[in-house]
Amino acid sequence: MRMTDLIQKKRDGGVLSGEEIRWMIQGYTKGDIPDYQMSAMAMAIYFKGMDIEETYALTMAMLNSGDKIDLSAVSGVKADKHSTGGVGDKTSLVLCPMVAACGVKMAKLSGRGLGHTGGTIDKLESFPGFSTSIAEDAFLRQVDQVGFAIAGQTAELCPADKKLYALRDVTATVASMPLIVSSILCKKLAAGADVIVLDVKSGSGAFMQTEEDAFGLARALTEVGRRAEKKVVAVVTDMDEPLGNAVGNALEVKEALAALRGEYKGDLMELCLTLGTQILREGGAADDDGQARAMLENAIASGAALEKFAQFVKAQGGDTAAVYDPSLLPQAPITVEVPARSGGHVKRIHAESVGLVSMRLGGGRAAKEDTVDLAVGVVLHKKVGDAVEPGESLGTIHARTQQAAQEAADMLRDCYELSPQAVTRAPLIKGVVK
Amino acid sequence: MRMTDLIQKKRDGGVLSGEEIRWMIQGYTKGDIPDYQMSAMAMAIYFKGMDIEETYALTMAMLNSGDKIDLSAVSGVKADKHSTGGVGDKTSLVLCPMVAACGVKMAKLSGRGLGHTGGTIDKLESFPGFSTSIAEDAFLRQVDQVGFAIAGQTAELCPADKKLYALRDVTATVASMPLIVSSILCKKLAAGADVIVLDVKSGSGAFMQTEEDAFGLARALTEVGRRAEKKVVAVVTDMDEPLGNAVGNALEVKEALAALRGEYKGDLMELCLTLGTQILREGGAADDDGQARAMLENAIASGAALEKFAQFVKAQGGDTAAVYDPSLLPQAPITVEVPARSGGHVKRIHAESVGLVSMRLGGGRAAKEDTVDLAVGVVLHKKVGDAVEPGESLGTIHARTQQAAQEAADMLRDCYELSPQAVTRAPLIKGVVK
Repeated sequence: MRMTDLIQKKRDGGVLSGEEIRWMIQGYTKGDIPDYQMSAMAMAIYFKGMDIEETYALTMAMLNSGDKIDLSAVSGVKADKHSTGGVGDKTSLVLCPMVAACGVKMAKLSGRGLGHTGGTIDKLESFPGFSTSIAEDAFLRQVDQVGFAIAGQTAELCPADKKLYALRDVTATVASMPLIVSSILCKKLAAGADVIVLDVKSGSGAFMQTEEDAFGLARALTEVGRRAEKKVVAVVTDMDEPLGNAVGNALEVKEALAALRGEYKGDLMELCLTLGTQILREGGAADDDGQARAMLENAIASGAALEKFAQFVKAQGGDTAAVYDPSLLPQAPITVEVPARSGGHVKRIHAESVGLVSMRLGGGRAAKEDTVDLAVGVVLHKKVGDAVEPGESLGTIHARTQQAAQEAADMLRDCYELSPQAVTRAPLIKGVVK
Repeated sequence: MRMTDLIQKKRDGGVLSGEEIRWMIQGYTKGDIPDYQMSAMAMAIYFKGMDIEETYALTMAMLNSGDKIDLSAVSGVKADKHSTGGVGDKTSLVLCPMVAACGVKMAKLSGRGLGHTGGTIDKLESFPGFSTSIAEDAFLRQVDQVGFAIAGQTAELCPADKKLYALRDVTATVASMPLIVSSILCKKLAAGADVIVLDVKSGSGAFMQTEEDAFGLARALTEVGRRAEKKVVAVVTDMDEPLGNAVGNALEVKEALAALRGEYKGDLMELCLTLGTQILREGGAADDDGQARAMLENAIASGAALEKFAQFVKAQGGDTAAVYDPSLLPQAPITVEVPARSGGHVKRIHAESVGLVSMRLGGGRAAKEDTVDLAVGVVLHKKVGDAVEPGESLGTIHARTQQAAQEAADMLRDCYELSPQAVTRAPLIKGVVK
C-alpha cells in the first residue's frame, strides 16, 4: 500500500476501505507516513468527505492507536460529556455533581487547554490543594465512591488524533465533518464510558455555523457512536454569546457554585438540565425526560449536587472552604465597569472576542508553557435580548492592573452588537439527536 | 501573513494576491513554511485551481527563487524547447541541430533523468569523451559559435520548483493545471531563451488525457508566457504510442542520427519539423510556416543538420566517429525478436509499459545513484496502424543477458493492443496554440 495512492483515491472521490484507513493511521502514528502526506489527505477529505463507514473506521483506528481507560472496576452506569467548545463553558463543573447526585457516575479526563481561558483543570486549581494528578486506581475508586472525578490525562489516549489534530490546526483542515466526528469520538470511546452526551454548538461563533451543519454533525456523531456500540446523544445548542455570564477561571468556578446553590437560572443551568436529562435517561436512572429533569432539579434544590461537588473537591485534595464561601476564591485586585456608550438591545455578543479579552487579561494560554492567572476575567451583565440604557454597565472587568483593565474594557465594549429594535433570544436548545 | 490563512483562502475558492504567492514561495524555499502546509495548499489548488494572474505570479515567484541564465552574450535569437514527457522522446537530439543549421540558436540545459530511459545527457554519453559538464562561459561561447549546446544544469534554477515538484510527486498533487504550468514555465524562463516551444502531449499515456485538457494546458502556458514577455508556442501532440521506434539510450541516439541523415521519415521527424517550424517563424528566421519547413527539410537533405550535430559532439569533447558510423555506438550482446502471438492491427502501444521494459533491461534509473546501461533497450517494428501477421516480429529486444531478453520480450508483447479491424492512426499534431 502506498500513501500517495490513497491520497489520490480520496482526491478522486473514492471510498477508502477499513484496511486502508487502519494502515494509514498506524503508519502516521508510527511516523512512517509523513505529515506532508497526511495534510494532503486531510485536505482531500475536506473536499471529498467520508461516508459513515469510513468515518467509523477512522474513529476506531485512532481509538486503537493508544491506551484505553477500563472503567469496568466502577459499578453502575458511567457517563461522559463533551462540548464542541465554547467560551465561558463551565458545564462540567455543574453537570458532573448534578448527575452524580442522581446516581449516574462520571469519569472525566480533562486538559489544561490552550486558549481563551484555562481548561477545567486550571479552573479547579482555584481550590487550594486541588490536584488532578491522580493514579488510575485512585481515579476509578473515586468515581465509584464519590460518583465522579476529573483527572488530567496520563494514559496516552488516541496519539493519532493528537498528532492529526495539531496538523489540521495549521493546514486549514479542521472544519471537516468526518475529521471532527472521528476526533471527538475516538477520545470519548477511549475514555470508556457507556453513555456519551455531546453538546454540538451551532451559530456564528461555532465550528458549525449553520443549523443544518450542526444537525449533520450531530447525526454523524450518533451514527458512528451506534456502530461503536455506545449510547451517544447529541444536543445541538445555540452559541451566539458566551455561556453563562462569567469568562475567566475562578470567576467561572464562582458561577458554577452559584448554579449548584440554585441561585443561577440562566442558559448555563438550562444546558446542564438538558444534558443531564439525556444522561439519566440513557443511563437508565430515569424512565423519561420529565422524571430525569425533576431528579436533577431536586439535586440542586436539596443541596445534594453542591454536597457532591464538595466531596469531589475534598477527594482530590482541595480545600472545600471556598465551595461554601466563594469569596475565598482567587480575586483580582482591580475591577472596572464597562458602561455602554449608547443604548439599545443586545443582538449578539461575540463569544470568541470575549474569550480574547479574558486571555489578554492573563486568564488563558497563548503557548503551552504560559501560566494562567486564575483571578482575572470578565463578568457580563447584559446577555442577548437584554435592553441596555446608555451608560449602563455591560460587564465587569477583573484585572491585575488598571491599564490592563482599561484595555479590556474597550475590547469588551466592541464584543457587543446592539440593535435599536427589541431582540428575541433564540432558544438555547435547538434539538436533540439520538 | 500566516500560511494557514492562505491555505484557508484557497480552500474556500479565494484568489491569492501576487504578494501572498511571493511570500509563500519565498518562505517555502527558505524552509520557513513546512512541507505539510505546502502539500495542503497544493491539494487546495488541485481542487480550486488558480486564475491566470495567480499562475503567472506563482511562475515568477518560482523563477525568482534561484539563479537565471543570462544568454545576452549570445548573438541572435535564442530558442528553447520542452516536452511534457514521453517515452522514446529523443526530439532534442534531432531538433537542435536542425534549428541551429537554420540560424536560430538553442541553449539547452538537461538532466540525467529518473525513469524509463536515461535523460538526454545519458544518451549523449554514448559518444566516448562527450561531456555536459561545461562552465557557463564555455557553454555560452559554444551556443554562439556552434549554434547549440546541451549542458548539465550547474546553476540552481528554480529551487522552489524542485522542492515543490518532489512534494507534489508524493502527495497526489501533480495533475493540477496551474501547478504544471508554473513548474514548466519557471524553468524555461530561468534558462533565458527568447522563443520557447512546448510539446504538450495528449492521450492515454500523458498527464493530459483528454484533448480538451491538453489544449487548456497549452492555452495557459502561452498566456502566462505572454505575460512574462516571451514568445511561447505550444504544440499539442498525440501520445498513444512511444515516439519513433527506439526506446533505450544508444538506440535512441542511433535513431536520431538516422533522422539527421534523412533516412527516418516517421512521427519523430514530423514532430521535429513542426516544432522547428514554430521556432524559426517565432525567431524571425522564416517569414511563414511554409518557408520554415522548407528550410528545415533542406537542412536534413543537405547534410547541414548532421554536420551541426557532429560539430556539437566535438565541441563538447566527444568522439565524432560514431556520428558517421553508428555501429560504433554501444551495442548490447544479446538481441531477441518478439514474435506476435496472433495477427491484427496495432491499435495502441502502451508507452509507459514500453518504458518499463527498457528500465527493466537496465536502461533507466529507479534511484538517483543507479548507473544506466547505454546499450540496452527496445526497437519497435510495428507502430499504431500497422498490420501484424501471427509470428511477425513486433520489436527487437537489446539486452545484457538471455534471461533479461526473454523477460523483456514477454513484457513488450503485453504493451501491444491489437484490433481485428484496420486501424487509422490519429494525426500526430493535434494543434498549435500561440
